[in-house]
Amino acid sequence: MPAAPAPTRADAEALDRADPLARFRDRFVGLDGSAYLMGNSLGPLPAATEDRLAAFTREGWGGRRVEGWEEWLDLPTRVGDRVGRLVGAGPGQVVVGDSTTVQLHKLLHAGLSGRPDARAVAVADDEFPTDRYVVDGVAADRDLEVRVVPLDGCDGPVAADAVARTCADGAVGVVVASLVRYRTGARADMAAVSAAAHAAGALVLWDLSHAVGAVPLALDADGADLAVGCTYKYLNAGPGAPALAYRARRHAHLHQPIHGWFGQVDQFAMDATYAPQPDARQLLVGTPPVAGLLAVDEGVALHEEAGVDALAEVGRAQMRMVWDAATAALLPLGVALATPADPARRGQHLALRHPDARALVDALADDGVVADHRAPDIVRLAAAPLHTRFVDLWDAVEGIRRHLAA
Amino acid sequence: MPAAPAPTRADAEALDRADPLARFRDRFVGLDGSAYLMGNSLGPLPAATEDRLAAFTREGWGGRRVEGWEEWLDLPTRVGDRVGRLVGAGPGQVVVGDSTTVQLHKLLHAGLSGRPDARAVAVADDEFPTDRYVVDGVAADRDLEVRVVPLDGCDGPVAADAVARTCADGAVGVVVASLVRYRTGARADMAAVSAAAHAAGALVLWDLSHAVGAVPLALDADGADLAVGCTYKYLNAGPGAPALAYRARRHAHLHQPIHGWFGQVDQFAMDATYAPQPDARQLLVGTPPVAGLLAVDEGVALHEEAGVDALAEVGRAQMRMVWDAATAALLPLGVALATPADPARRGQHLALRHPDARALVDALADDGVVADHRAPDIVRLAAAPLHTRFVDLWDAVEGIRRHLAA
Repeated sequence: MPAAPAPTRADAEALDRADPLARFRDRFVGLDGSAYLMGNSLGPLPAATEDRLAAFTREGWGGRRVEGWEEWLDLPTRVGDRVGRLVGAGPGQVVVGDSTTVQLHKLLHAGLSGRPDARAVAVADDEFPTDRYVVDGVAADRDLEVRVVPLDGCDGPVAADAVARTCADGAVGVVVASLVRYRTGARADMAAVSAAAHAAGALVLWDLSHAVGAVPLALDADGADLAVGCTYKYLNAGPGAPALAYRARRHAHLHQPIHGWFGQVDQFAMDATYAPQPDARQLLVGTPPVAGLLAVDEGVALHEEAGVDALAEVGRAQMRMVWDAATAALLPLGVALATPADPARRGQHLALRHPDARALVDALADDGVVADHRAPDIVRLAAAPLHTRFVDLWDAVEGIRRHLAA
Repeated sequence: MPAAPAPTRADAEALDRADPLARFRDRFVGLDGSAYLMGNSLGPLPAATEDRLAAFTREGWGGRRVEGWEEWLDLPTRVGDRVGRLVGAGPGQVVVGDSTTVQLHKLLHAGLSGRPDARAVAVADDEFPTDRYVVDGVAADRDLEVRVVPLDGCDGPVAADAVARTCADGAVGVVVASLVRYRTGARADMAAVSAAAHAAGALVLWDLSHAVGAVPLALDADGADLAVGCTYKYLNAGPGAPALAYRARRHAHLHQPIHGWFGQVDQFAMDATYAPQPDARQLLVGTPPVAGLLAVDEGVALHEEAGVDALAEVGRAQMRMVWDAATAALLPLGVALATPADPARRGQHLALRHPDARALVDALADDGVVADHRAPDIVRLAAAPLHTRFVDLWDAVEGIRRHLAA
């Protein structure tokens, strides 16, 4: 595509002035003038969450004590349904609890339970380590072959044709893939990949960690089967907050294997036999982490208030500007862009490749720009429109340019 | 044994005045004059924990953001080792994370992984529901028979001779049992039960939920194999706080099956293959719940400050007084004591049996005494010496007496 004109800092400032979501930046604690471009790693603290957690600690745990369970007991499904509305999932299909990795493990077993004849499980190439570890562990337990789905180019997303080829012989039970790649930010086509897998008799287990709260999602409409996702990145729920798990209603017979009292149909009957809940509550296991769930609730509330359409629009504009700025300023200096050029095929972080990636991130930090490095050669800059400014992104590109030109 | 003289309220007041731990009650939020006898369900909020959580939210997550991981990353093992010191476990054997149920599931698989020839798994009779569900689920997955270990009388603990009989044919790989029964408060002999299981080629997976922070524990010395435990009861870590998992050093080759990046030997190498940590870190899975871990840390700190010997001594005295009071006042009114008479064979709650158990708990609540009911006929009164007063226990017994005599 033809090169766009390089945006200037004045352009970035103008975009900030026109940003309909700019007012949300003040809803976060302590950002002040800093450029925090790691919303894809640990989202900053919303002020409302600080208040909610303090009130829970003092009045809930500290005040109501055990009676607090009257309002906490259904948080995993109440917050789950609210997350569901954000990701295009009808009620009764999403819960929040456990870590992303535990959710992956549970849902991979659940998916495979519906395919006792499967001989293989597939995982996208260069998938996030914990996803690969889960796949390898489950495959070893179930004596399945692990197949790697090649990506669309070295940096691209998992694509429908590659999934079709990987699953062509009908041996694959479940394909595990991130919707948005943690490294390059490449974003898959959920509907097309799902259809390709289904045509070969496989389900897709999506890892939405770099997608939820970042890009518009329509799980039900796009034919999603199973999904997990992290809430402490773009949903701003704090370090180690519980993860989401989605199981499409048509797959309600696919049970996860950790039988716990929160997945039991009548939890306090203390019945002798485990009888699974008919809906997503079967995905629950043990006592839910109450504070973490309240933080997820507040994070989602901020997204609802901003509106998914506005978030998507501003998010796209931020990615376009940082892409254009990096193209103009950094490509001549030996930087490559790992993130796809197609706005529909990327998430909300820009990945730059350069051999001195680590030194570049350190140099940015000295300028007060917080970004991160992924070995060996990637710098990631996340655009989280709830709190990221256009000038933050512009300053990051300019900082890299100055360092490389020095 | 001969009946002890019935303690009067003046006796209880005198015991409170002489209680070396009485000063700790003010270290909790909001107890004031109330009698909160549910430390075995949800421990009250320590004031230091409220401060620690607020500081973490504002200065850690809110202030340091992603850089906070420098101090959070090793919390599961740092807090784990601290819990280890409280339960008589040397370093590198305890981690904190996930829910108690998820920990049970992981450790049961780990234990069975060392006994590929096992044909059965055993679980104590009347075990807590989630434990039974986990056992049933894992047994179904591994195609094992489930054997129930009969208890010592209807209300007693799991006993060595019953374990020996259940495991006599060498078919049992792992025995799952609570050290202190959630219903009756009966407490098993860890050393004797472990020895009996070992003699039959089985390991014991202990659920310490009603024991940790309640009774003195010596996991290493007593030959414990595997253990899990809840931290939101006697350790006062808040609703849904992460659970402990213990694996004796000699069992380091027994790996749990959920392969995650926090159990990987070099987490940030993003290596292609899962290589398990050599110590208890293999029991870790996903990103740890930071706030919950800090709350566990504070709860343990309070126990360290009080001292395990003093806690044990006051705890025994409280159980003796409430036992004597209930014996004198309630047995003539048709109440039975489900908790064993032997101080070495009981934990820190007294279980009373009466057909009107639910109504009795409601009547206590009207008097400001918070206790709980377990269907069909049990009232539980917990004595948690960090915050429970002798008069709280005495008033509970007196409240039941008045209600039954009315």
